[in-house]
Amino acid sequence: MSKTVLILPGDGIGPEVMAQVRRLLDRIGGFNIEEGLVGGASYDAHGTPLTDDTMAAALKADAVLLGAVGGPKWESLPFADKPERGLLRLRKDMELFANLRPALVFDALAQASTLKTDLVRGLDLMIVRELTGGVYFGEPRGIEDLPNGERRGINTQVYTTSEIVRVARVAFDLARKRDGRVCSVEKANVMESGLLWREEVQTLRDAEYTDVQLSHMYADNCAMQLVRQPKQFDVIVTDNLFGDLLSDCAAMLTGSLGMLPSASLGAADASGARKALYEPVHGSAPDIAGQDKANPMACILSASMMLRYSFDMAAEADLIDAACQDVLNAGIRTGDIVEAGMTPVGTVAMGDAVLAAM
Amino acid sequence: MSKTVLILPGDGIGPEVMAQVRRLLDRIGGFNIEEGLVGGASYDAHGTPLTDDTMAAALKADAVLLGAVGGPKWESLPFADKPERGLLRLRKDMELFANLRPALVFDALAQASTLKTDLVRGLDLMIVRELTGGVYFGEPRGIEDLPNGERRGINTQVYTTSEIVRVARVAFDLARKRDGRVCSVEKANVMESGLLWREEVQTLRDAEYTDVQLSHMYADNCAMQLVRQPKQFDVIVTDNLFGDLLSDCAAMLTGSLGMLPSASLGAADASGARKALYEPVHGSAPDIAGQDKANPMACILSASMMLRYSFDMAAEADLIDAACQDVLNAGIRTGDIVEAGMTPVGTVAMGDAVLAAM
Ligand SMILES: CC(C)[C@H](C(=O)O)[C@@H](O)C(=O)O
Ligand SMILES: CC(C)[C@H](C(=O)O)[C@@H](O)C(=O)O
Repeated sequence: MSKTVLILPGDGIGPEVMAQVRRLLDRIGGFNIEEGLVGGASYDAHGTPLTDDTMAAALKADAVLLGAVGGPKWESLPFADKPERGLLRLRKDMELFANLRPALVFDALAQASTLKTDLVRGLDLMIVRELTGGVYFGEPRGIEDLPNGERRGINTQVYTTSEIVRVARVAFDLARKRDGRVCSVEKANVMESGLLWREEVQTLRDAEYTDVQLSHMYADNCAMQLVRQPKQFDVIVTDNLFGDLLSDCAAMLTGSLGMLPSASLGAADASGARKALYEPVHGSAPDIAGQDKANPMACILSASMMLRYSFDMAAEADLIDAACQDVLNAGIRTGDIVEAGMTPVGTVAMGDAVLAAM
Repeated sequence: MSKTVLILPGDGIGPEVMAQVRRLLDRIGGFNIEEGLVGGASYDAHGTPLTDDTMAAALKADAVLLGAVGGPKWESLPFADKPERGLLRLRKDMELFANLRPALVFDALAQASTLKTDLVRGLDLMIVRELTGGVYFGEPRGIEDLPNGERRGINTQVYTTSEIVRVARVAFDLARKRDGRVCSVEKANVMESGLLWREEVQTLRDAEYTDVQLSHMYADNCAMQLVRQPKQFDVIVTDNLFGDLLSDCAAMLTGSLGMLPSASLGAADASGARKALYEPVHGSAPDIAGQDKANPMACILSASMMLRYSFDMAAEADLIDAACQDVLNAGIRTGDIVEAGMTPVGTVAMGDAVLAAM
């Protein structure tokens, strides 16, 4: 039975890095690949950051692979037309509530971190970010005119028990396959929604995951601890907004943003299959778009995550991961991860190298 | 005319570090010093994290000096009794809307950073955090029971034009005395309140501060850029919640949290005087409380900020700042900033050293 993958390259460097993934999937073979537009690219073609047709295709696909969305070209568009709304609609309509963002330091790249090498060598932490709730989607929201001539902007941070429990469960399950430790992050000292978060995560742990070690941390402290001693963490679980900041901070600690994949997962259906979207952690990097400079590895490793989690193709995923390692160890590097004495290669040459190493 | 200073040592290491400040203010002389309780200390004595009497004293004082609040002892108290509510009430009732958090790397301490030394040597950035609005105070808020047996936690992120403009003004005024650059931080791509923030800051700049260079950045990117290249920033202005995380991240970059003061300012009255509260950036550090280990410098430098900004005593403030520099250069260090080959000194000995250096 052939597996349908919907590829949404998106904006900026998205199409370039995705082209390398495409070559790789063609090599492996056996996929039914569809392509669509999202973000600014979709807005330019259809006047909306995601068409209903593409949304329907995403819901039907066995997995979605996304490049990146956004760029200065579309920054002054009305709120509902912004490229980001396309990505947010995908997350919401596919109910992708759990966003897995590994922050992993590749041995060959430990020196690329802005942190002292000892503090990051061997770093392997996983941030589980809630992705369909909180202030990203809460109502009421908007900008209103006040009688005194001022304006007022409103967003609502809201979480229910079940929204918290289902994402916490993903974190606990992951911890069991890792070092068995979860750190739950909120601002329970200031926000009631954070207090509820803390209580529900603790209740779930005490009821079903007594073998997992659970700690709680305020989000501001977590931002500090990531910089102070990132290796103290195993799995971090947090809400949509804190997860946005903290996972980017953690990603940057590795010094190689261009290497980091992510997975966004929905609930498992009766057959055990989950809706899933895979995307690199890096953004659309408009400053280097179209110049054959972008590092395709994060997108390639996102495809590898897809093979592993959505298609049970661990052997092929291992092959890709090993090929990426080999290429790094051979000193083949794009500009973002190049070291003194090496000559940087372009996006296509990096794709060549990974394919050759396989 | 004698200046009334209300000292609120608070919890954890608060009383210890404040004791050193007290010695210093006594040495300078001419202050009418009052003391009060806040946070867990106030809860233990009076059943509330801030009494009305102490609140009244804070409103009457010419300046407030605060140590730190909070600790595990009070973490399971009901929301309204938590130590943090005392601090939040002070900020709100004194209308301290602008929180100035410098992230400064002292030459003698550049190596203490977890970042590579080159990236932080000479770092001098200022985060201006909105402090009386946003999700910290927005209504509706709370935890409610749903008919289906679940609970729902709600907080509201809300900003009006005037709330944004008054704190942006503080940032622009500061930038004029520094490097003339302001970076405004929000999530305008996801939150309407952030979009309003961006628009109002830009409008103010175009109307009154065309000599200041203004850029805008998404909060997740800012968390990355702080770790990637912190010296790119001059002044950052952001909302209450983002400011909480980003200023702690920036503070940790310096590697010497125990060195960083902060000021929280209200509007200027007819005479030009502002309500003001000064406090170290570090927290109550319960793990080392009562052990004569805490670094009193952040609290001492907070007092120096008070002299400079509230009392126009620049000469005395310079004297304190120089004394702290001298002590550092002489290699006298508390445990948090000690380097290989030095013997750490305690809180009191550090106070002795600063007094001696003056
Ligand atoms: C593009 C944007 C909407 C998105 C977010 O804020 O979630 C991005 O920053 C991310 O982290 O995936
Ligand atoms: C203690 C707490 C309420 C406070 C905050 O969240 O504002 C603290 O983290 C700070 O940054 O001053």
